[in-house]
Amino acid sequence: MLKFYHAPWSRSSSVLWLLEELGVEYELTEIDIRQEGGVPENYRRIQPSKKVPAIEHDGVVITERAAITIYLAEAFPNAGLAPAVGHPMRGPYLSMLVYCDSVFDPALAAKVQGWKYESNHFSFGLADDMVNYIDRILTERPYAAGDRFTAADTQLASSIGYTMQQMKALPERPSFIAYMDRVKDRPANLRAAEKDQEMAIKTPFFQKQFAG
Amino acid sequence: MLKFYHAPWSRSSSVLWLLEELGVEYELTEIDIRQEGGVPENYRRIQPSKKVPAIEHDGVVITERAAITIYLAEAFPNAGLAPAVGHPMRGPYLSMLVYCDSVFDPALAAKVQGWKYESNHFSFGLADDMVNYIDRILTERPYAAGDRFTAADTQLASSIGYTMQQMKALPERPSFIAYMDRVKDRPANLRAAEKDQEMAIKTPFFQKQFAG
Repeated sequence: MLKFYHAPWSRSSSVLWLLEELGVEYELTEIDIRQEGGVPENYRRIQPSKKVPAIEHDGVVITERAAITIYLAEAFPNAGLAPAVGHPMRGPYLSMLVYCDSVFDPALAAKVQGWKYESNHFSFGLADDMVNYIDRILTERPYAAGDRFTAADTQLASSIGYTMQQMKALPERPSFIAYMDRVKDRPANLRAAEKDQEMAIKTPFFQKQFAG
Repeated sequence: MLKFYHAPWSRSSSVLWLLEELGVEYELTEIDIRQEGGVPENYRRIQPSKKVPAIEHDGVVITERAAITIYLAEAFPNAGLAPAVGHPMRGPYLSMLVYCDSVFDPALAAKVQGWKYESNHFSFGLADDMVNYIDRILTERPYAAGDRFTAADTQLASSIGYTMQQMKALPERPSFIAYMDRVKDRPANLRAAEKDQEMAIKTPFFQKQFAG
């Protein structure tokens, strides 16, 4: 039994995509993270900051996007989206997944906010270093962890797509554009995008945005 | 062949502790992250923000603390520090490791800096929510992922130790103090602390601090 706590067009959209790649059955619970007054307090027992994504599998709650991605890809190995322990792609796979959550997101948030700090003061470093690193990786190899698509790509491509195409906060490096082209027509990605859009246009927040 | 890039009394100290728990041989390269002018640029090919920790195993570089911890604990399974896939502690183990890097560190950094933001604006949320969550977890169970010590504890206990005992940025909740007491006398922790101190007192930065 797999439960998925999701908000459309959010950081949990990468997990929606992954679930479609894995081809597993799940029960989706929509969490309206944009509702006025915020997410009800009782959701905190599932996710400590009242954010998405979260999943519940066999009665155990799993939070944090990279952890959920690692967990799902290894719990449902038939799709072959997790390099095995001992495979040379294993380290890059884990590194990129954690990097997306622990560096990509906070470093870009800090840049968007205009927060000033020295690179060595914080674990997440500078956004410019992050951009150059992702550019280097996607110039050296076609996918996040090496020469084939893995679960790490659902997270990296979602991060790039959201921040480059929607937020316009990430610069449009040629390697990013080429990478997004490589993954955009995957059937699971298209299915997830369609489901996400169906949900999004029904939420009050986006209805108001579209109306305005 | 295992290489470990480390700076004493830093975020990589949790990996030093883990390596001692695993009882594996490794070659330690000290990276003086506090040197004037910063870490030489050529270290960036190992770690994209010129930070520690980083490891190199069988010729592959692995970065990001949670990724390194997951990788090492599964590459050297004899110590039994990684709950197996399918075990009920697997999800909480992965969640806590990622949480330490992606929420604990940036949320506390933002608080120390006095940065103001709404909880729902950033992936890492608010420091107060983080403190309450870790408090809840360590009240509900003795260790980071459940009823026994795992590799996740090397990271969580290092994070709590550094920010509560050294930085005084984390409040001294009774559950944090009791947890630190549970892990402090582990032989591997004591060995790592001794090695770290030996290295630290030889670095120019700390020699200057002690002299001042």
